[in-house]
Amino acid sequence: MDLLIRNIRPMGDAPTDLLVRGGLIAEIAPAIDAPGVPVEDGGGHLAIPGLIDAHTHLDKTTWGMDWHVNENRASLKERIDFEREQRARIGIDPHRQSLRHALGLVAHGATHIRSHVDIDTEHGLTLLEGVARTREALAGVIDIEIVAFPQSGIMARPGTAELLDQALANGADVVGGIDPCGMERDPKGALDVVFGLAERHGKPVDIHLHELGELGAFSLELIFERTRALGMQGRVAVSHAFCLGAPDWQRTAALIDEIADLDIAILTTGAPSAPVPSLARLRDAGVRVGAGCDGIRDTWGPWGKPDMLHRAEVIGMKNGFRRDVDLEHALHVCSVGGAEVMGFAHAIEVGNPADLTLLQGRTLAHAVAGGAPRPLVVKAGRVTGRLGELAGQVMP
Amino acid sequence: MDLLIRNIRPMGDAPTDLLVRGGLIAEIAPAIDAPGVPVEDGGGHLAIPGLIDAHTHLDKTTWGMDWHVNENRASLKERIDFEREQRARIGIDPHRQSLRHALGLVAHGATHIRSHVDIDTEHGLTLLEGVARTREALAGVIDIEIVAFPQSGIMARPGTAELLDQALANGADVVGGIDPCGMERDPKGALDVVFGLAERHGKPVDIHLHELGELGAFSLELIFERTRALGMQGRVAVSHAFCLGAPDWQRTAALIDEIADLDIAILTTGAPSAPVPSLARLRDAGVRVGAGCDGIRDTWGPWGKPDMLHRAEVIGMKNGFRRDVDLEHALHVCSVGGAEVMGFAHAIEVGNPADLTLLQGRTLAHAVAGGAPRPLVVKAGRVTGRLGELAGQVMP
Repeated sequence: MDLLIRNIRPMGDAPTDLLVRGGLIAEIAPAIDAPGVPVEDGGGHLAIPGLIDAHTHLDKTTWGMDWHVNENRASLKERIDFEREQRARIGIDPHRQSLRHALGLVAHGATHIRSHVDIDTEHGLTLLEGVARTREALAGVIDIEIVAFPQSGIMARPGTAELLDQALANGADVVGGIDPCGMERDPKGALDVVFGLAERHGKPVDIHLHELGELGAFSLELIFERTRALGMQGRVAVSHAFCLGAPDWQRTAALIDEIADLDIAILTTGAPSAPVPSLARLRDAGVRVGAGCDGIRDTWGPWGKPDMLHRAEVIGMKNGFRRDVDLEHALHVCSVGGAEVMGFAHAIEVGNPADLTLLQGRTLAHAVAGGAPRPLVVKAGRVTGRLGELAGQVMP
Repeated sequence: MDLLIRNIRPMGDAPTDLLVRGGLIAEIAPAIDAPGVPVEDGGGHLAIPGLIDAHTHLDKTTWGMDWHVNENRASLKERIDFEREQRARIGIDPHRQSLRHALGLVAHGATHIRSHVDIDTEHGLTLLEGVARTREALAGVIDIEIVAFPQSGIMARPGTAELLDQALANGADVVGGIDPCGMERDPKGALDVVFGLAERHGKPVDIHLHELGELGAFSLELIFERTRALGMQGRVAVSHAFCLGAPDWQRTAALIDEIADLDIAILTTGAPSAPVPSLARLRDAGVRVGAGCDGIRDTWGPWGKPDMLHRAEVIGMKNGFRRDVDLEHALHVCSVGGAEVMGFAHAIEVGNPADLTLLQGRTLAHAVAGGAPRPLVVKAGRVTGRLGELAGQVMP
């Protein structure tokens, strides 16, 4: 893929042109001369590395389907049970829905996704297969990393560990996990399975941790112990980590120090109704942090859209950010942050893949606060989105 | 103003027509025959009473101006001082900016506003005068209630009480106040002035209360005492009331019971980074609750837009709402709730003013979750907005 984009402002810097050769950024300079290469007018817009949804659930959404009426006054476990038992009846086809969800993210400027996909004894590997078909269909449009996610728990549902094992042998990239105490009711057992699978398959780990306060802190400590024992520094992520939003700052700071020491990554969604880790504190401690939209419009809840700039707003507001430099940091977490967690280079620099998004706005902070239009989305030099819509040739 | 709106679904009910005569709702029935009356096609859309922003600051926004770069790592007091000292330099003209802000609310479906307007010794009554000009210019387009708001405090700045007195004699409808402890540093003195002014002018009270935990609870108790002593039940509102978001539920429940007993109203913005009162608990206790966008894109912070449906989303997410009935309640608070606080009838019923907004969506919950388009906004039978834009003849 060759492409010349004229007149963009990378990260808000002075206007320049950007030349793509073979999908990689070949040159960044004013007035590039590249005869025969297709040209896009960047219109003087801001350019950032493509947005990254590093925590979502492509297999769950009802996006584009009839409105799902939610009547459940439900606990976490009841919501999980409802979804497992009802998703076929509701008609949440994992391929069709993950395709809609992923294309929505593309249209709004994303170039990469890390998606958890439910692995349970009700559905076996069928949800994984549906999302894997989407990943294949969207090769070259958006990269999708799949987490084999035991949403309904491993310990209470015999057969789940074996299914996770199969999932990791058949296309899943990351070992998932869920609340070792709150959901699994057997933290040692569950985490031994999760880290055992990671060791056997040589895959990283990403564990959902909704547990609050000391319960979450205890589960974190068990994760620390296994990360250290297996030498998995740099290959473990914790999603949500609500316990890091606890008000006991001495305790929380000590946990964050150990997270930094073990190079564990944190993935946040800025959950508006829960305590969340402070982006400022994690940044100060040098912790890698990515972000995600989480589930959107699913049986869990009605909120959200496939738009990581909207998520930057949710996260920024939740973190009490007001200064321009802090809004820029919220944006960083929603783009480069995901790449730091998943482990690839993601900056507008010569030699990197040409994965980038244009934002309309005076400055990066202005673009975040305004939910800026995205005039152009580019994946490896291919135009994939224009102004919130898919580019013509992208739809499979 | 006469108008026939065909094919709308009031509150999601069965499709019907609605006839306006002289600005009032005259008939709600299918297939109304009204020769000579102008007709609007409601397209089968949902209809709700007009949205109400019951807590905002029309005099502060930079909406429509150059992007304001925020570099302040500031406390509440520092933000207040910065604004008071810099708003003229930045060019925040109170008439021009309040007009932009109010028209933005109109375009997005609002029919009423309660706006706090700063009264301080730096600006005297000039900010009030600017907003009052906007109120006059928009008569018949949107109703604006003005709170004389001592943003910089009364006790620390001699002359402020006298200015508030003049403001209330010259167009302000409500006596405002701010953190009696945290900002005023003299809770008895400040509240005696606020309630004294209310008594002298026969006006209701609306006090900003950001104070957390026991400090806010103490200030609330002082407000209770004065409300009871002056017989001001039903005429006092507390804005924000972050202290009601405190985790000590026994304590908070007792405060809410007394708020209900004294018929004090609460105004919430669903502040994402602060503890907020629970809408569900306030509803269960029978407390009147309205909502507002608060300041939008001002020197305080970059967030927000003039859109009360966006605010229903912020508030719903913050309250952890997931069920359809709860989303409907968030919408109720953002429309009828404001009217309950300000004290006027606001339902789609014969005899009431024809103040209503159409929402595109399958159900009310769907409209809230999706930030639905608003095909038509009607104020006293006059079309004021279409699809997020002002109707042609509205702009003064």
